[in-house]
Amino acid sequence: MKIKVSQEKLNKALSNVSRIAIGKVTLPILNNALIRVSNKKVSVITTNLDMAISDFLPVSSSEDGVITLPAKLLAEFISNLPKDETVEITTKGDKATIKAGKYSSTINGSPADDFPELPEINEKTAVVYKINTEDFKNSINEVMIASSNDLTRPALTGVYFNTVNNSLHIAATDGYRLAEKQIINKVENDIFAIVPTSSLQEVLRAINDSTDEIEITFNDDLVRFRLGEIEIISKLIDASFPDYQKLIPKENNIKADLSREELLRVTKLAALFSRSIGGSIICETKKPKTFSVKSITNEYGENNSDIETTIKEEGKISLNSRFLIDALNSLEEPEITIEFSNSLAPILLKNKKNNKYNHIIMPLNS
Amino acid sequence: MKIKVSQEKLNKALSNVSRIAIGKVTLPILNNALIRVSNKKVSVITTNLDMAISDFLPVSSSEDGVITLPAKLLAEFISNLPKDETVEITTKGDKATIKAGKYSSTINGSPADDFPELPEINEKTAVVYKINTEDFKNSINEVMIASSNDLTRPALTGVYFNTVNNSLHIAATDGYRLAEKQIINKVENDIFAIVPTSSLQEVLRAINDSTDEIEITFNDDLVRFRLGEIEIISKLIDASFPDYQKLIPKENNIKADLSREELLRVTKLAALFSRSIGGSIICETKKPKTFSVKSITNEYGENNSDIETTIKEEGKISLNSRFLIDALNSLEEPEITIEFSNSLAPILLKNKKNNKYNHIIMPLNS
Repeated sequence: MKIKVSQEKLNKALSNVSRIAIGKVTLPILNNALIRVSNKKVSVITTNLDMAISDFLPVSSSEDGVITLPAKLLAEFISNLPKDETVEITTKGDKATIKAGKYSSTINGSPADDFPELPEINEKTAVVYKINTEDFKNSINEVMIASSNDLTRPALTGVYFNTVNNSLHIAATDGYRLAEKQIINKVENDIFAIVPTSSLQEVLRAINDSTDEIEITFNDDLVRFRLGEIEIISKLIDASFPDYQKLIPKENNIKADLSREELLRVTKLAALFSRSIGGSIICETKKPKTFSVKSITNEYGENNSDIETTIKEEGKISLNSRFLIDALNSLEEPEITIEFSNSLAPILLKNKKNNKYNHIIMPLNS
Repeated sequence: MKIKVSQEKLNKALSNVSRIAIGKVTLPILNNALIRVSNKKVSVITTNLDMAISDFLPVSSSEDGVITLPAKLLAEFISNLPKDETVEITTKGDKATIKAGKYSSTINGSPADDFPELPEINEKTAVVYKINTEDFKNSINEVMIASSNDLTRPALTGVYFNTVNNSLHIAATDGYRLAEKQIINKVENDIFAIVPTSSLQEVLRAINDSTDEIEITFNDDLVRFRLGEIEIISKLIDASFPDYQKLIPKENNIKADLSREELLRVTKLAALFSRSIGGSIICETKKPKTFSVKSITNEYGENNSDIETTIKEEGKISLNSRFLIDALNSLEEPEITIEFSNSLAPILLKNKKNNKYNHIIMPLNS
């Protein structure tokens, strides 16, 4: 195998794929990146068995072949070379010699046969969606925040892609809060699939300015995200997601329109005091025009802030301040709406104008 | 006690002092900041018993008094208030009520009597130096890097301020490397004192653009750094520093002038390979004009880089790559000089032109 390639292009490809190359004690080859040359194209691939990332790059001259090399060592080595250098990689058995000007190294690799087989999408039966990269990134960030780390409840460790009345929605919940958003208005094919949050984080990291559109392909137990030359294939989570649509409270008589920034500030102030009581704060609506956020603790003292707004119905609810801060950071309009029906029912937060995004928080017992 | 003060000024003072307020289980009052009002001036003070930081700020209206309040809670509370707000603090017993527009809080404090007594400098017998802030910051950073974290050898956990032939020098060593610099050319009074590295880190953090000069005052077992209105008083380390001047090798026949950036790059490349062997790399001079840096490991492979320069004497030395990287980051000129006499003697690194800074690294057994 032999390739000649610019430091810049190789560096970019390696930094895209090397992050997930974390060898397990039982399978150290997962530390390695598979490098394959055929038809003047180089593919660089890593996998952690749950997902695989590949990137393709054109080379000026090459001889076909395949090898696996320690991904992180190779990525760091290439990234430390001067930007304008041409890198030449030649292999001999399981060793790769890398030359760039006066720099020269020989890296020990492993044969490609030992590399795990990579999952493949069956294109014929697949369901394909296309979405603007910026919209995708924002939506995933807004929803992912509500997903769980609890591996004993696998369905909650992912983001649920699902169709509701021919629209594509995404949703995530950790059992205490739920975030959901409509991401494509009209789609032709239905989908009900849970994508691991960890895989979506890699997709977000791989996004760069040069890709306007992401292609998402679902098939059986796999999903593929294609961003230009980068492909991320991940297993889906094999579990059933809660029927979340019915958890979104529809009729709420207690309502307030608030400045997002102002509510964020007073929530942060109250949160400082409530650390010793698990972050619990109290939101209260008082006629005719006060929305107050407060916390009272024996340890630090007490805090109260009032926001002026129109209030038609009085009510009081205890919330986890961290969840409220997360929700407010996920909302994007300057004006937001908060609504609930009583102190035991979930509270619903939305942008005031655009109603594609719903964020629900369960109340604390007060 | 009562004060009215701008959010901005109070925020700055609290962020300067609150960092070291870390209560110990046995002395929780160390979590608190002492706030004292007298003569229209407010002082805000914290201590961790080894050092104390105080900042002074003018207030528009005030009533004298004193209280201690949780430093971090107060600092975060004030920093979350709007920038243009005026903050009013009034105390009643051990409680402080803080008002700023529509925001209001009551924080539980403790009486000032419980606050530890603060060390005081005896101005009459003190030795005082003045130094440009930027020079001080750079010099401390260049030397501090060689100090140790090993609390069993207290002398090595500080920076040694010492006079050599009427010049003020600073030095630090962890036993494997040593860095020293002349910071004032001519001084009248001698000093031999070890300042804890942790205290110097706080001094560096407290530096802001508005202070051109730092006043350093030594007296008995204390040192005070004065930066405008901020004062940091620290205990000195009661131990004797090694007689380091004799450790600096004077006669070295093996020498090379090198580009700092180039040597840093090739050292980083070699360091990647040498991780599995404790970071050991080999530097070699070859007549007439090659300086090479290499590493050879069974695990990853081998690496070699050559730099062109004039070599008059051949030699070879094994070094810890991390120490060499630290030294190169501390040198500042584009051209540096590296010199040693044999593979068992320490290696000396200097800027090529300015010879105020010396950095020594002990070789590894090869």
